[in-house]
Amino acid sequence: MKRWLSLLPVLLLTACTQMPLRGTGDLGVVIERATGRVAIVDTTAKSILARVEGLGDLSHASVVFSRDGRYAFVFGRDGGLTKVDLLLARIDKRVMQAGNSIGGAISQDGRLVVAQNYEPGGIKVFDAVTLELLSEVPTQSKVVGLADLPGQRFAYALFDKGEIWISDLSDPRVPKTQKFPAGMQPYDGLVTPNGRHYMAGLFGEDGIALLDTWRPELGTSKILEHYGKGQEKLPVFKMPHLRGWAVAGGKAYLPAIGRHEVLLVDTATWKEAGRVQVKGQPVFVMARPDGRQVWVNFAFPDNGWVQVIDTLSGQIVQTLQPGKAILHMEFSPRGEHVWLSARDDHMVSIYDTQTFKRLATLPADSPSGIFFTSRAARTGF
Amino acid sequence: MKRWLSLLPVLLLTACTQMPLRGTGDLGVVIERATGRVAIVDTTAKSILARVEGLGDLSHASVVFSRDGRYAFVFGRDGGLTKVDLLLARIDKRVMQAGNSIGGAISQDGRLVVAQNYEPGGIKVFDAVTLELLSEVPTQSKVVGLADLPGQRFAYALFDKGEIWISDLSDPRVPKTQKFPAGMQPYDGLVTPNGRHYMAGLFGEDGIALLDTWRPELGTSKILEHYGKGQEKLPVFKMPHLRGWAVAGGKAYLPAIGRHEVLLVDTATWKEAGRVQVKGQPVFVMARPDGRQVWVNFAFPDNGWVQVIDTLSGQIVQTLQPGKAILHMEFSPRGEHVWLSARDDHMVSIYDTQTFKRLATLPADSPSGIFFTSRAARTGF
Repeated sequence: MKRWLSLLPVLLLTACTQMPLRGTGDLGVVIERATGRVAIVDTTAKSILARVEGLGDLSHASVVFSRDGRYAFVFGRDGGLTKVDLLLARIDKRVMQAGNSIGGAISQDGRLVVAQNYEPGGIKVFDAVTLELLSEVPTQSKVVGLADLPGQRFAYALFDKGEIWISDLSDPRVPKTQKFPAGMQPYDGLVTPNGRHYMAGLFGEDGIALLDTWRPELGTSKILEHYGKGQEKLPVFKMPHLRGWAVAGGKAYLPAIGRHEVLLVDTATWKEAGRVQVKGQPVFVMARPDGRQVWVNFAFPDNGWVQVIDTLSGQIVQTLQPGKAILHMEFSPRGEHVWLSARDDHMVSIYDTQTFKRLATLPADSPSGIFFTSRAARTGF
Repeated sequence: MKRWLSLLPVLLLTACTQMPLRGTGDLGVVIERATGRVAIVDTTAKSILARVEGLGDLSHASVVFSRDGRYAFVFGRDGGLTKVDLLLARIDKRVMQAGNSIGGAISQDGRLVVAQNYEPGGIKVFDAVTLELLSEVPTQSKVVGLADLPGQRFAYALFDKGEIWISDLSDPRVPKTQKFPAGMQPYDGLVTPNGRHYMAGLFGEDGIALLDTWRPELGTSKILEHYGKGQEKLPVFKMPHLRGWAVAGGKAYLPAIGRHEVLLVDTATWKEAGRVQVKGQPVFVMARPDGRQVWVNFAFPDNGWVQVIDTLSGQIVQTLQPGKAILHMEFSPRGEHVWLSARDDHMVSIYDTQTFKRLATLPADSPSGIFFTSRAARTGF
């Protein structure tokens, strides 16, 4: 009897303390790349809630979120796919799904998680609840630029084959795939925020492959023929992340390759509509959710700087030095704040996007990607 | 001892059953207008989780959500403002803040909840955590079309004064208000999805007042001079809800007044860009999140119909009869489903927006507004 009673607190504890009652709309994760760890953050309190270890090689990790905002799916460079429970702050499930992976996506309805792989190539389709493997699409090529499209479809590019594929996973065990020519060595891709236009940047030639996924029968077209390394063969310190592309006010803002410029493109005609001179070779070019500002970070040796373009004036309105090696930026869901990871200062900084004041800094071990649960409700993230 | 032991299950129960461990990203509420009640729904399971009573007169209720997605702020017609805890399925706080109210909004950072009032008029600013009244802006006029803007600002229209006001609540106890002429009797207003352009529909004259909130110094302009009841003074069974306005692919889709038409407006020039003939007088004209479809419901006697416009072809691609008196529509966060309330069939229907198949129906007592927590991450909702 006494033993029973003495168990009472323990029972209550196990039943409840692991159950923080809270919403998930203001949660997120910060990748701590050097330690195979993620920090779970609260964007309202601007604080770190917990850390989860054992996620493997996170040197090029990306994250998508479950439809309910409770789980983060972390894609590791080593092919590990880890489902992290943000409320219990622990690994819910983990599978080694490939030898070398560079990211993934989640289906419109949240039921399917898809990984894109370098080795052995191809994409793999998993049940988002169980992480059971449902199907694969072999490609005999490195896969890049995987993006979810409306209607349980996924678009991605094949580096070695120079193609864009769209796989329809309406029946997740029987993928239906359409193939389109892209150009030489697509190295990354993205879909516009409305999920309509898929674009693949080309490493082997200048220009960008564009596919209107509302009218795939029209096939791909080549836009921005001069976009790329060009004839001068400038030294490129880091290929920019297309996924960061900003679309605001009918214009796309994209990082020039090898040049200290951000290019403006008219999204109606896909013709160049101007350039903005910036402090270095841009890596991420990201629009604040309302589209009024575009934030830019840079490749080495300028990766300690961040610049802000006002999309109304087309001018740079702010230049910041948030820390050493700024790898990533993430806006709060409605854009009042931006979080910046400073890898070599082992710190995440939070800025007010209106006043440009630094509101807080959080310690993090070599932080890279920052991802908030509001991505769960958006296409192409 | 025995008595103690017998309490064990009870203790565990009280400690835990009220604490469902779940994310809040796929939650929402359905207004049951006749009974002063809301149903808490799960958009993944397509089910009703719980009901919360005692919210007063919900005959013209609207809802906004806390930044974390846990709380719904329900604005009742009787001036009641109720903070509902979606996880505990109970009223967290409730205040009677006015005699007659028609809705409210929440600030960009989620800290301020603002109510717009008919009687006594004006807006009231509340702390989102405590519902403490922080300040008021008296207007000596009915207030309509309250919308949140980036930077802790709120735009709204004054029916009796024919003005648009913008209040900056950066210091929530000391509102700073700018005033702009709008035209005769603005009856509703909305802000574009990027939070930039505020528009007020006019009841006392044709046309729409437009304010570029990025450049308020330019003042308001009048657009769509022929938008309104026009010379013919058609019978208008119900003034449309401007808040439902769809913006997709550089065009705004808005309900004609008194006519069986949806008007297309070019959002670059704000000139009319076409019309689509529909089955009745449109009430809500709402874009699927990807902008490919625009869904339209109608005023009596055509309020049993819903039509779908394909924004690529400009044609109506589907006509549905989801039930009697379709009052409201809400898309799932990424648009794969739409929920429709059929007031007089006491039912909510869930449709697949790609196949147009009805996936489920849920019982609800005179359902009207449907609101999902994904609104928390969006501007102007």
